[in-house]
Amino acid sequence: MNVRDSNARLLTDADVARFPNAAAVELMRAAVLAAESGELSAPARLHAADLTFTAGGTPQVFGFRAYHTRDTPHDDQAVVVWDASGRVRGIVIGGALGPLRTSALGALATQVLADPAAARLGLIGSGTQARAHALAVASVRELEAVTVYSRDPARREALAAELRCAGLPAVSAASAREVCENSNLLTLATNSAAPVIETGWIRPGTHVCTLGPKERNRHEFPADLAGMAALVVTDSPAQLAAYPGGHLFADAPVRSLGACLNDPPVRHAHDITVFLSVGLAGTEVLLADALLGVS
Amino acid sequence: MNVRDSNARLLTDADVARFPNAAAVELMRAAVLAAESGELSAPARLHAADLTFTAGGTPQVFGFRAYHTRDTPHDDQAVVVWDASGRVRGIVIGGALGPLRTSALGALATQVLADPAAARLGLIGSGTQARAHALAVASVRELEAVTVYSRDPARREALAAELRCAGLPAVSAASAREVCENSNLLTLATNSAAPVIETGWIRPGTHVCTLGPKERNRHEFPADLAGMAALVVTDSPAQLAAYPGGHLFADAPVRSLGACLNDPPVRHAHDITVFLSVGLAGTEVLLADALLGVS
Repeated sequence: MNVRDSNARLLTDADVARFPNAAAVELMRAAVLAAESGELSAPARLHAADLTFTAGGTPQVFGFRAYHTRDTPHDDQAVVVWDASGRVRGIVIGGALGPLRTSALGALATQVLADPAAARLGLIGSGTQARAHALAVASVRELEAVTVYSRDPARREALAAELRCAGLPAVSAASAREVCENSNLLTLATNSAAPVIETGWIRPGTHVCTLGPKERNRHEFPADLAGMAALVVTDSPAQLAAYPGGHLFADAPVRSLGACLNDPPVRHAHDITVFLSVGLAGTEVLLADALLGVS
Repeated sequence: MNVRDSNARLLTDADVARFPNAAAVELMRAAVLAAESGELSAPARLHAADLTFTAGGTPQVFGFRAYHTRDTPHDDQAVVVWDASGRVRGIVIGGALGPLRTSALGALATQVLADPAAARLGLIGSGTQARAHALAVASVRELEAVTVYSRDPARREALAAELRCAGLPAVSAASAREVCENSNLLTLATNSAAPVIETGWIRPGTHVCTLGPKERNRHEFPADLAGMAALVVTDSPAQLAAYPGGHLFADAPVRSLGACLNDPPVRHAHDITVFLSVGLAGTEVLLADALLGVS
C-alpha cells in the first residue's frame, strides 16, 4: 500500500488556553492589515447540512472554521489549516479559539480607537466572550478597574472573582447603569435582542465595543447609539453589510479597522467611539496556524 | 481558565490503509440505503477560498469532507466527524479515504449489477483509484484475472505487480482493446477527457464502471455507451444531475444504486450494465466515523 505519513497535529482548548493574549492581538493586527490590502481573502460563509463554514487564507496559509447548528449538548468547532504546499498542518477542536480571536480583535480596536488614558473597563455580560475580552484588553493596557454586570448576581460575581484571580481589579455591579457610569471602555457581550443599556448612561469619551446582536431588529445596544458616535468602526465592513435583515448602522458611515490602522483617526476628548465586532473571516485560520507553530 | 478536554482523534492514511475493504463495502451498502430512504442527507457541495466542502450526515453522525483546489505539490484532504452530542469525534487527514470510499461503492455496484459469475476484471488506468477499485472488488468476489492497461508501460506493469503482491492474478496488457476483450468487469479509472475505449470492444454481458469524467463534453467512455447499456445506475442521481454542463446520460433513464439494492434489477445474459460513480456525498463522513470507531 502506498501509505503516506502526515505531520498534521490536533490541538484542543487546553492548547488554545496557553496562547498569550498579547500575541493574539499582534496576529490580529497583521490579519486586519492583510484583509485591508486584499492579501487575506475571506469570502462569505457557507451553510450545508447543519454546518457553517468560514474559509479564508493568504498565499502562505489557508483553511476554514466549521461549526454546527444542531441543537446538541456540545458545540465543538473545528479549524483546519493547510500550508502553502497543500498539506494539512493541523486542526484545532473545541470552543476556545473563537473567543481568543474575537477578544484579540476587540483589544486591537481598543488600542486604535479608545482614549489612550482610558483604563476603566465595563462589561455587560458575564459569559465566555466577556471573560476573554477582559483578559485580552488587559494584555495591551493596564486596567484601573473592571466592572461586571449581568442579570444573574451569581454569574457576574463569579466572573469578577475569576478576573481577580487573573490579577485584574474586578468587581461586580448591581446594574448596567452602574457599569456605564464607572467605565470609559464599555463592552457589551450579551446575546440580548433588546438594548441592555441606555445611551444616556454612556460617559462622554467612552469607547464602546459591541460583541453581541447588532441587527436592525435585534440589538443589544440602543438604536440611537449610531447617532451619538463620532466614529463607528468594524473589523469587516463586508460581513457587516451582509447581515441578513441589515444592521443598525446601515445609514451611518462605518470605517474598517484596517483603514484605521493605516490612517489612525483623530479622537477628541469627548468623542464616543464604537467598535462593531463581527469576526473577520480568515482570522481563525491565521490564529490556528500560529497555535500550530508554537504548541 | 475554563479549559475543556476533547477526546477527538486524528487519523492519517496509515490508519485508513488498515481498514478492511469488505467492511467498507458493507458500510457503503448501509449508506446507499440511508441515502435512498432520506436518512442520509447529502446537500450539494460548497466552494469558497480554494476549498470545496461536501457535508452530510444522519441523525447519529454528521460532518464533511474538505479538499483544496490550489495548485500545490500535495493535496491533503480533511474529513471531520461530529457525534450526535455535538462533539468532534475526530478527523481523517490525507488522500486515502476518498479512494477507499469510491472503490467500496464500485465494489457494491459490482455485487448488485454484474453477472454473479463475472470474475475477469479489466482496468483502464493505473492510478490510485484503479488500484483501490481492484482491491475492493477482490474483497467481495474471487477474481480469475485482472488485466491492466494505461498509456505508460512502466506504470501499468507496476500496478499489475503491486496487485500480484496483494494476491491477485494481475497482468498488464498492451492495449485498452486487449483489456476489454479479456474482461467481463470493465472499470475505467482515468482522467481522460476523450474516450479511452470503443464500445465495439466491450463484450456482451460486461459490467462497466466509470470512475472518471462523464460530462457531456468531457468523457472517458464513448458517447454511444449510453445507447448500448441495458441498465445505467449511479450512486447519486442528484449529484449526477447537478454536473455543470450536463452528463452523457441525461437523456437515458438512470437508476439509483439504492433503488437497485431495494429492488434488484433482472439481468439478462448479454446485458451490458453501467455504473456511473459520482461519489455519494456524506459517505466519506460515515466511513471516517467507522474508522474512528476501530482505529
